[in-house]
Amino acid sequence: MKLLEEKILKEGKVKPGDVLKVDGFLNHRMDIKLLDKMGREFKRLYKKSRVTKILTIEASGIGIACMTARHFKVPVVFAKKSATSNISDDVYSTQVFSYTHGNMNNVVLSKEYLTSDDKVLIIDDFLAVGAALSGLIDLCNQAGAEVVGCGIAIEKAYQDGGRKIRERGYRVESLAVIEGMDPEKGIVFTRQFR
Amino acid sequence: MKLLEEKILKEGKVKPGDVLKVDGFLNHRMDIKLLDKMGREFKRLYKKSRVTKILTIEASGIGIACMTARHFKVPVVFAKKSATSNISDDVYSTQVFSYTHGNMNNVVLSKEYLTSDDKVLIIDDFLAVGAALSGLIDLCNQAGAEVVGCGIAIEKAYQDGGRKIRERGYRVESLAVIEGMDPEKGIVFTRQFR
Repeated sequence: MKLLEEKILKEGKVKPGDVLKVDGFLNHRMDIKLLDKMGREFKRLYKKSRVTKILTIEASGIGIACMTARHFKVPVVFAKKSATSNISDDVYSTQVFSYTHGNMNNVVLSKEYLTSDDKVLIIDDFLAVGAALSGLIDLCNQAGAEVVGCGIAIEKAYQDGGRKIRERGYRVESLAVIEGMDPEKGIVFTRQFR
Repeated sequence: MKLLEEKILKEGKVKPGDVLKVDGFLNHRMDIKLLDKMGREFKRLYKKSRVTKILTIEASGIGIACMTARHFKVPVVFAKKSATSNISDDVYSTQVFSYTHGNMNNVVLSKEYLTSDDKVLIIDDFLAVGAALSGLIDLCNQAGAEVVGCGIAIEKAYQDGGRKIRERGYRVESLAVIEGMDPEKGIVFTRQFR
């Protein structure tokens, strides 16, 4: 998505340790107009998939998910990170390692809000090793819900999360795909402007 | 707001320990159409305030904040709960006690994203004792930003957070105000349908 790639080039900051800071528009300060256009693009990509629910994970996926759900006219459900491992019978749960915080999170979702009738579009801000995405797919599988695909804002193609999830047969659409990045040399996209 | 009050009466569940469960439409599964109408109502209430930024706190405020920001055509910034007390120079920080989780959180906000030029509308899902709201106001004061007001989905009027914050001179608009609630007797609103 040209608009997102341009925004990343203009405002994103590549930091040591493979960190791309985009918190000026994506996940701390949120550019709602941009998020809305990203949502419209996900709708274009998945318009034939009869999506019944958008699934994301707190906290940084929620904004993109909401602005996407508006175009699909469906509800959003977000999986919650739970400090405790006391999981009740009422929730699906899975484990997701956070590379940002360096810890393992229990991630839970009320059974009420995801069922075998659902056709789910999973939305998240980043795809790198695919830890969060795999966890969200696991929750859908536990519920017997169909994953129609994943919608990602920024994928790091030089990490293998996207490849692994596509090899499992899931459709993954990323609006900006980073081939490589470096604090000195900057960012190279896989397909510069489609 | 009639629509929200009706939704609370129809789908909200009053649980022992003064808990109102509205996670079927407000803060786990999110009814985006309802959130969008709530956003439109906040816009009606604050249309003269020349809001430049919506401020909320992760995670459950983010959805409402995004759907509100759309109507104001301004960005959202959300304060982050930080497990660590290693606060850098780049952030404003405050302490917020979570009654849901029974712990104290450091809450941080990048200095870049809130400045003395901002006129801020603070959005959150619940107002009870006012811990989160006071923390968010504190962050605005640290930034020298003007708080034009607060927009709350559900206020518990029998707790004193709303009264205290209004007494400090802040405008607080709550779309549903609960006078009292009880697992047996149900919910009574302060102004049933305005």
